[in-house]
Amino acid sequence: MTRRVKLAACQMGPVQSSASRPEVVGRLIHLLERAAKDGATLAVFPELALTTFFPRWEIDNETKLDVFYEASFPNAETQPLLDAARRLRIGFAIGFAEMVQDGAAKQRFNTMALVDAEGQVAGLYRKMHVPGSEMPEPGVTVHLERRYFAPGNLGFPVFDIDGLRVGLALCNDRRWPETYRMLCLNGAEIVLIGYNTPLLLDEAPQLAHLRMFHNHLPMQAGAYQNTVWVAAAAKAGLEDGQALIGGSCIIAPTGEITALATSLADEVVTYDADLGLIETCRRVNFDFARYRRPDQYRRICE
Amino acid sequence: MTRRVKLAACQMGPVQSSASRPEVVGRLIHLLERAAKDGATLAVFPELALTTFFPRWEIDNETKLDVFYEASFPNAETQPLLDAARRLRIGFAIGFAEMVQDGAAKQRFNTMALVDAEGQVAGLYRKMHVPGSEMPEPGVTVHLERRYFAPGNLGFPVFDIDGLRVGLALCNDRRWPETYRMLCLNGAEIVLIGYNTPLLLDEAPQLAHLRMFHNHLPMQAGAYQNTVWVAAAAKAGLEDGQALIGGSCIIAPTGEITALATSLADEVVTYDADLGLIETCRRVNFDFARYRRPDQYRRICE
Repeated sequence: MTRRVKLAACQMGPVQSSASRPEVVGRLIHLLERAAKDGATLAVFPELALTTFFPRWEIDNETKLDVFYEASFPNAETQPLLDAARRLRIGFAIGFAEMVQDGAAKQRFNTMALVDAEGQVAGLYRKMHVPGSEMPEPGVTVHLERRYFAPGNLGFPVFDIDGLRVGLALCNDRRWPETYRMLCLNGAEIVLIGYNTPLLLDEAPQLAHLRMFHNHLPMQAGAYQNTVWVAAAAKAGLEDGQALIGGSCIIAPTGEITALATSLADEVVTYDADLGLIETCRRVNFDFARYRRPDQYRRICE
Repeated sequence: MTRRVKLAACQMGPVQSSASRPEVVGRLIHLLERAAKDGATLAVFPELALTTFFPRWEIDNETKLDVFYEASFPNAETQPLLDAARRLRIGFAIGFAEMVQDGAAKQRFNTMALVDAEGQVAGLYRKMHVPGSEMPEPGVTVHLERRYFAPGNLGFPVFDIDGLRVGLALCNDRRWPETYRMLCLNGAEIVLIGYNTPLLLDEAPQLAHLRMFHNHLPMQAGAYQNTVWVAAAAKAGLEDGQALIGGSCIIAPTGEITALATSLADEVVTYDADLGLIETCRRVNFDFARYRRPDQYRRICE
């Protein structure tokens, strides 16, 4: 029997800093309802879906900074989203800023949680490739993820949920081939990705017209080279004055984009993914055990 | 001062088994002359450029098999090509079947030689990802590279020639992200690729329409993710009854295809490559020292 799963990429329009958590959670529930109505049973939301993309600002006041973080997931404000998942029988992945109280110290991560169709947290992923810098740099668009987030410390986990093997990745992770390769080697069939990608970068205005191409290219190659399904959700549109690209999509193990969001607003795209295609594609070119040369790749890990 | 090099991808139409070596070398010299006339100083020829793609056949007679191999490179028949390089002041890479006499035993490799603008061999690469099988397999297009070639044993070398840092790859190598990553980590600025890719595979007729997409996708991603220039040359057209795709191209570190062959015949495409673009692209997303997580990639090398 063919194994299939209907995937949903739930793109969000901007989340302005003026938006309250309950307001955002309401939008997320509405997106989840649209995905479920379309028959989807696994959805992906963007990176930092609960807040504005605050690393675009230099924030020195710790109290002001902490507002953007979740000290626990779920909590009273986000639990309704998990309740909706259970009611709608749909799993989902969602990105948020995570704060871990470690004695007196605070550890901060750019995190994605995976929730199953029972509304239970199946696991966490913490962004491995944290881009930007710790301090603003001259001539470079302010992007302080490396100040606000420690590099992920949970590896590239793959979770069994609802009979599927699911890996997670966040934004910049999707540009690095090692992300997909690690998830594939760890057994992923599906990779769920959330992202926030500014349209314009001060450091490379001459590459601005390629931002969407550079969004899709590595995800399509990652899907093809690792024979996985990819579903990716953007936060899009003009958020607190910064333009973010959309282009949320679902990509087959052939590398083909099978569903694509065309707005910069809240939008759900779905695709009925045939998991059998993974095996078909792998047979043609990607019999890893036969063809890979891991002993020859040592420099990649050094 | 901007460093630039004009690259040439020298696509070949079919090399029928009836073609003599001197005849093929004559064609290659003609292609090299066209490349040089267009101002190119570094060219790439296909994989197994001197012969038909013989792994499509089961060949049990060793004498018949040996005809396809070069016992030395260059030899009297191929030296005119290196003389032409010296005369035209153009370097090139070329694929051929290499036989190494190891005492009584013969070692066979799918090899690419890099020749500098002095007509001197700068180094060899031996195909690392050898596809196909040792015996014909039911339902699968005959492809016996694993019978006729041992997996490469020279790693992923990068050569300094004519002031450039050049890596090589052959055909199936281009589908594996590790190829580009290893060459990049070894310092490549330019990756030269030769390939022979059948249009139709018995094992996946439903993917036939994606053959060209699957040719370009991993090369574009490899160029982008490793900020290298890629020049790739196909052997194309109906060769001894088997249709081979073309699509020879030159790809920028942005992942853009900057030059593309549109025939299935002998054809030269060139592009004036700005090596400064490597640094520009790297600065935007790919500061390896800052962002990569090599200690987290261990499974890739296991």
